[in-house]
Amino acid sequence: MPESEAGGVRSVQRAVDLLALYDAEHPARTVRELVDETGLAKSTVVRLVHTLEQCGLLWSRGDGRTVPGPGLLRWAELASSTWQLPEAALALMKQLSEASGGEAVHLYVRQRDARVCIARHEGTRTLRHVVRVGEEMPLWSGAASHVLLSRAERADVEAVAATAPHEDWPTLLWERAQRAAVAGWSASHGEREAGVSGVAAPVFGRSGRVVAALALGGPTTRFTEETVADFAKLLVESATALTALDCIGGTAR
Amino acid sequence: MPESEAGGVRSVQRAVDLLALYDAEHPARTVRELVDETGLAKSTVVRLVHTLEQCGLLWSRGDGRTVPGPGLLRWAELASSTWQLPEAALALMKQLSEASGGEAVHLYVRQRDARVCIARHEGTRTLRHVVRVGEEMPLWSGAASHVLLSRAERADVEAVAATAPHEDWPTLLWERAQRAAVAGWSASHGEREAGVSGVAAPVFGRSGRVVAALALGGPTTRFTEETVADFAKLLVESATALTALDCIGGTAR
Repeated sequence: MPESEAGGVRSVQRAVDLLALYDAEHPARTVRELVDETGLAKSTVVRLVHTLEQCGLLWSRGDGRTVPGPGLLRWAELASSTWQLPEAALALMKQLSEASGGEAVHLYVRQRDARVCIARHEGTRTLRHVVRVGEEMPLWSGAASHVLLSRAERADVEAVAATAPHEDWPTLLWERAQRAAVAGWSASHGEREAGVSGVAAPVFGRSGRVVAALALGGPTTRFTEETVADFAKLLVESATALTALDCIGGTAR
Repeated sequence: MPESEAGGVRSVQRAVDLLALYDAEHPARTVRELVDETGLAKSTVVRLVHTLEQCGLLWSRGDGRTVPGPGLLRWAELASSTWQLPEAALALMKQLSEASGGEAVHLYVRQRDARVCIARHEGTRTLRHVVRVGEEMPLWSGAASHVLLSRAERADVEAVAATAPHEDWPTLLWERAQRAAVAGWSASHGEREAGVSGVAAPVFGRSGRVVAALALGGPTTRFTEETVADFAKLLVESATALTALDCIGGTAR
């Protein structure tokens, strides 16, 4: 890739990273804050902010702070129309949560080296597994990741495993993905965070590709061997029903 | 600006332009279509698509088409939390539409050389003025633009007017903005599109800056001199009430 092209890719990535600094806790930011958070030079931040303002992705509020811009409203509609699940699918997730005794249900799709939560039912337990819609989780850990990687090439799985902070991960992750492929589901205990467990099953697209992973998550203390077996059965049933609804990532596929 | 920096800005702009090609009518796109629509080289489009996929802004559906990515879900939430108006503000817009006899109500904010619709009440007339939330309109035309520019510097107004397809616009737009400043509202008839009229009034921020324009829009045949005078009175009342709610672009300002 020529240097100018690499610079272009980097600029887009930086712009996205800058926008990611705005969240519910930080709805408005000063240039000073953005410099501190990114570690970029002030001139670079000023230029990026200016570009994002021109694209409508940031909006100058008039008090020295910028907020996410009104141009995002159009994208919000686009994201919803592509990723919003039909009522029937949301009802399935609610039923699954109830059948599991109130555990949290999440639906993940793969996004390169990550998995992104595209829908959830929060569950009713006081101690619960909380991942928000749009939130990214690492693809090297968790039952949902095993399932999302269950039909991937070995080189692909090993590249994902290389992002994990464990040396033995390329072999481990490949074995787990293979077991998920054979069993049709997977379970994980404390792979990323001690005390957190998950069970997941695949949702397929028309071409037979794994398009999403449906998962139950909660504290390891509640995910005993017996419970996991029950959850796996429930998950496979619900994931099969979701496959039949054919509703992940837009309508026709 | 050094060439590499200009390239970075261009890359971000191109990425945003590429995403703008996805809409309700085109929820999924092939690289071929993107090349045809943008006029960019195929290698450039492939690189941009790859970058946008890595950022989660596009998602490969597995059938040679890409759709808006799940990463947009996070931004959708961000945009809503910043721009979603409180119920009281939406109720005001509904009342205004009803008081006008069912005309469409739109609320615009300035975004550089454009104005973006951040909220609307569609109205009940069969022939109605339709601008969607998130849609950009040119800032060189329309009553809402006069209002948004009513406290701008002359050089700023002239720069905006330079984007209009009319030679006499710098003087005309400045005069209209000045009249809007004095009157506290403005009207327009067929400035951009023959037969379309609008009346607008300003919503102010805490610092006294014009932060938004509240507008009624419809066919010129319904916007007679008498009606416009009535609409102006209604708009000034509603815009003043919106100013008091202090709800544009996030909470504190």
